[in-house]
Amino acid sequence: MDIQKILNEIYKEIKPHLGKGRVADYIPELAKANPKDFAMSVVTLDGKSYHIGEHKKRFSIQSISKVYTFTMALKMYSKKLYQRVGVEPSGTPFNSLVQLEYEKGKPRNPFINAGALVVTDSLITHYKDEFITLENILSFLRSTSHTPDININPYVAKSEMEHGYRNRALANLIKDFKNLDNDPLTVVETYSKQCAVEMNTDELATSTLFLANRGVDPISQKAYITPTQAKRINAVMLTCGHYDASGEFAFHVGLPGKSGVGGGIIAIVPGKMGICVYSPPLNEYGNSYVGTLALELFTTKTGLSIF
Amino acid sequence: MDIQKILNEIYKEIKPHLGKGRVADYIPELAKANPKDFAMSVVTLDGKSYHIGEHKKRFSIQSISKVYTFTMALKMYSKKLYQRVGVEPSGTPFNSLVQLEYEKGKPRNPFINAGALVVTDSLITHYKDEFITLENILSFLRSTSHTPDININPYVAKSEMEHGYRNRALANLIKDFKNLDNDPLTVVETYSKQCAVEMNTDELATSTLFLANRGVDPISQKAYITPTQAKRINAVMLTCGHYDASGEFAFHVGLPGKSGVGGGIIAIVPGKMGICVYSPPLNEYGNSYVGTLALELFTTKTGLSIF
Amino acid sequence: MDIQKILNEIYKEIKPHLGKGRVADYIPELAKANPKDFAMSVVTLDGKSYHIGEHKKRFSIQSISKVYTFTMALKMYSKKLYQRVGVEPSGTPFNSLVQLEYEKGKPRNPFINAGALVVTDSLITHYKDEFITLENILSFLRSTSHTPDININPYVAKSEMEHGYRNRALANLIKDFKNLDNDPLTVVETYSKQCAVEMNTDELATSTLFLANRGVDPISQKAYITPTQAKRINAVMLTCGHYDASGEFAFHVGLPGKSGVGGGIIAIVPGKMGICVYSPPLNEYGNSYVGTLALELFTTKTGLSIF
Amino acid sequence: MDIQKILNEIYKEIKPHLGKGRVADYIPELAKANPKDFAMSVVTLDGKSYHIGEHKKRFSIQSISKVYTFTMALKMYSKKLYQRVGVEPSGTPFNSLVQLEYEKGKPRNPFINAGALVVTDSLITHYKDEFITLENILSFLRSTSHTPDININPYVAKSEMEHGYRNRALANLIKDFKNLDNDPLTVVETYSKQCAVEMNTDELATSTLFLANRGVDPISQKAYITPTQAKRINAVMLTCGHYDASGEFAFHVGLPGKSGVGGGIIAIVPGKMGICVYSPPLNEYGNSYVGTLALELFTTKTGLSIF
Repeated sequence: MDIQKILNEIYKEIKPHLGKGRVADYIPELAKANPKDFAMSVVTLDGKSYHIGEHKKRFSIQSISKVYTFTMALKMYSKKLYQRVGVEPSGTPFNSLVQLEYEKGKPRNPFINAGALVVTDSLITHYKDEFITLENILSFLRSTSHTPDININPYVAKSEMEHGYRNRALANLIKDFKNLDNDPLTVVETYSKQCAVEMNTDELATSTLFLANRGVDPISQKAYITPTQAKRINAVMLTCGHYDASGEFAFHVGLPGKSGVGGGIIAIVPGKMGICVYSPPLNEYGNSYVGTLALELFTTKTGLSIF
Repeated sequence: MDIQKILNEIYKEIKPHLGKGRVADYIPELAKANPKDFAMSVVTLDGKSYHIGEHKKRFSIQSISKVYTFTMALKMYSKKLYQRVGVEPSGTPFNSLVQLEYEKGKPRNPFINAGALVVTDSLITHYKDEFITLENILSFLRSTSHTPDININPYVAKSEMEHGYRNRALANLIKDFKNLDNDPLTVVETYSKQCAVEMNTDELATSTLFLANRGVDPISQKAYITPTQAKRINAVMLTCGHYDASGEFAFHVGLPGKSGVGGGIIAIVPGKMGICVYSPPLNEYGNSYVGTLALELFTTKTGLSIF
Repeated sequence: MDIQKILNEIYKEIKPHLGKGRVADYIPELAKANPKDFAMSVVTLDGKSYHIGEHKKRFSIQSISKVYTFTMALKMYSKKLYQRVGVEPSGTPFNSLVQLEYEKGKPRNPFINAGALVVTDSLITHYKDEFITLENILSFLRSTSHTPDININPYVAKSEMEHGYRNRALANLIKDFKNLDNDPLTVVETYSKQCAVEMNTDELATSTLFLANRGVDPISQKAYITPTQAKRINAVMLTCGHYDASGEFAFHVGLPGKSGVGGGIIAIVPGKMGICVYSPPLNEYGNSYVGTLALELFTTKTGLSIF
Repeated sequence: MDIQKILNEIYKEIKPHLGKGRVADYIPELAKANPKDFAMSVVTLDGKSYHIGEHKKRFSIQSISKVYTFTMALKMYSKKLYQRVGVEPSGTPFNSLVQLEYEKGKPRNPFINAGALVVTDSLITHYKDEFITLENILSFLRSTSHTPDININPYVAKSEMEHGYRNRALANLIKDFKNLDNDPLTVVETYSKQCAVEMNTDELATSTLFLANRGVDPISQKAYITPTQAKRINAVMLTCGHYDASGEFAFHVGLPGKSGVGGGIIAIVPGKMGICVYSPPLNEYGNSYVGTLALELFTTKTGLSIF
């Protein structure tokens, strides 16, 4: 399979669509993104990488960070983590609040905000400090992406914190149900910072390889998690990775993946490769419009959809 | 891969678990099932079949029928069907009612009861009569399973109707939102009858082959639906096929599948085979306890999980 | 206090508003009402009556019937009734369904539809038959209004039944929670018929006198219920009598009352009088627009508001 | 009517019940209250006062404070206040969150916590500062109670803030819906402090006189609000003053009133008197167990129930 050729074809096909959708503007810093930006990277298990577009341009990874914090927490707590956060799809944002109340503060899965807050809280408890927690999240991203200079954009983090009222509502509600160890504001701050990490598609695609390779980084041969844990993370990505459009994504793309409102999407082809695509404008469900299209074209052209 | 050998191993491993879980008893007729019954069938695209246990014993297919009615409706209405029923996971039964109200009578997916009722309603509208609708559902099952004598158990159907108050509540609520063409009671009756169809694991595994083969029955070469529609159905099975344990099933089994409270589960290995397992006692989520276990063993032993 | 003079003043003041609001049209039969119709009757405990407008014109009492069925059930079951239906306000219609689910099929109060269905069910259980139940409801209304020829309008009842999908949804959901003894459809039919009773303002004002007189009809001296039960009914009318505008009504009118979508409203001045007003067009909350205004003028002019 | 004699009778009758119920313990400071404490004060419009029990012992007024802040906000904003907070009953605490989401951040009434937070926010906006806001709340309580030394208990306020996660969740959710002007944490802090004001039954009964006297303090002749506004506040107290037991309270006591988890309840007899009762242990709905009983005895013995 000539991956570079397929990427070139995709590039040509998505070009007329660049700019469609709407750049996230609930945070002023994110609204500054260029709606015409586009990049796509594929990294195979043997370490070869293929790119189109601005794959060296970093962007805000936002909710993609949830995959890595979930990985870290699963490694730390193993199955005990499921006492605090479930692995089932959730439904609408509206329902996530109703359900949180109905299910006594236990979020349905680690990829809705409520669940990601609980996961981040569990990391803070483990590391006993929010700064050390952030340092370890960064270390994990630097290590899996083989890139030493990955950092948090402080302006995005600040902007995020200043507008994160719903996250604070969720964190305080979870705390009220005693499913948060640490101060809710601290958890929301740490979470806001992890979302403000900046990476490019090359780095993100590389950093997902361990998920495509049963928990082991194929480059360094480092085993981050067990094969079972990798399978679990992939399964949760497939069923819960794209908010209220997870079913649509499963059908159109047919790969485990996770999107962020910054315009990035990662996707995993188990046993084969890691993929990352970037294009800031979002569709009505909050997932990258052109990014979703590019991934769909990729699985169609390669026949790699799991269905 | 020696499928028969793998099935034999599975049979040995699940034997100590036979009887675990709880036979569905909300309908008296279902409560009569023998909790120690077990069967598993695998049929490959080349038409070979492998069995263990009582694969000739028929049981109530219940919600498995939703896969076939969804297939029929998708063929009839194509994308227009999505105006009436979504393809996203739903969450708890509790939420399915809240969400139905919140989303103005449009069920989240065709595999929750609300969605299956809308699908059956669409079939009745198409066939203009409930008896002709049932006859066509039976025809479809007979054709895909290559078995002429598949029928409805009238005692189960009657029992179902006599205890289906929640289904009637859902149907009337959907009707109130004008998303049901026909009389709610007629729709619930037709739905109750389609659930009371009886088939064995051999017949069910065979009848799923077209889903594993991009819409085409590999035995008769008959194209029931398009490849895209088959992919869609598989994707919905993976994300929504097991109620509030769809995430768990995706992880443990890693195959598109659909369970019924009668104790049956079908599963599809795209491009390879159709599977059906049967064991009446259910786990806490309403899916066959031993059936889920057997499927998990199958994907573990064969490495066929999509993750 | 010259009640007739006050009524005459009210008549003059509401005239410019006649026709404002919107006649209920969810049932075709109700949509036929003349939007300019108006009547108001006041009957004092000494049996004197005062009227303006078309007080001999009968109209569909609709939800006003709930007051009388609740009275009958309270007399039969006393406090045991509260095991099946509460006495607390409910909130939006949206919530009544959520709450019904959350509170396991126990409606919040007897004046939301869910509660009225449970009340009617309890009457059917008592009388062992729906026709005898309806006959007794009619008897009670004939007796309290001192009018022998009160009857059900069969066209309205039929129209009601043909469009009562939400009521059927509620009844089936309550049945699913085992808080309905009888067949849901029977209960909805009986309820639809009780709503289709026709009375005029004179008859309705007279029929409320026992509620204003501690349970005793001041004309016949017949004790229908205990003083405590009368107080209870009045309290529930004040807090729950006007759907989602009960708070507004309590403030503007300041009297226990109950409205119906037919355009009627009854109100009680404890220890003094019964009142009924009629004007078909409804305000946004489903209560008679001009009727509410007339009652507000009445308590303002007489100083009879309880606040 | 010999009020003192009636109070003495009540005292004798409630004595065997002292200690029944459960002292609020969600805040450690409140848990220190003596469960056997009891006091009741009645102050008539002519300024005469009657007491039983420890009417000079101050306690935490808690949610009773909501009546005074609502009064202040209504005076400031008049009807414009209703754009931000409704006047309808709410239902369960569970629903208050669902409803807040469903109704886009507009609380149902000023006496549920969500509504009280919006009211306090409106005061902070008016006074431009939280300390000046608190000073004005204290001034209002000092003025209406004719007691210069009313203050906030800082230990209770601190304890309240440390455990107020649900209030913070509500405030942040309302802020997310843009129905809060000020910082959510500032609003919750101010609200926590207003709840921590300490008064005795004598002071509280006196401070309600303006509500019983159409907005005018009968002692100082100062008009705090219009007669219409006083009527409105009384109506909201009757329909929404006692959380999920407002219907029960309306029936048993039959007077507008407001309870606090500190064990106090105020009640108003329009045109006649203000009442306050205190006993720390609460019933299952969070209202003073013995306090509710004492008020019920009072209206039974005096015939002052509005029903």
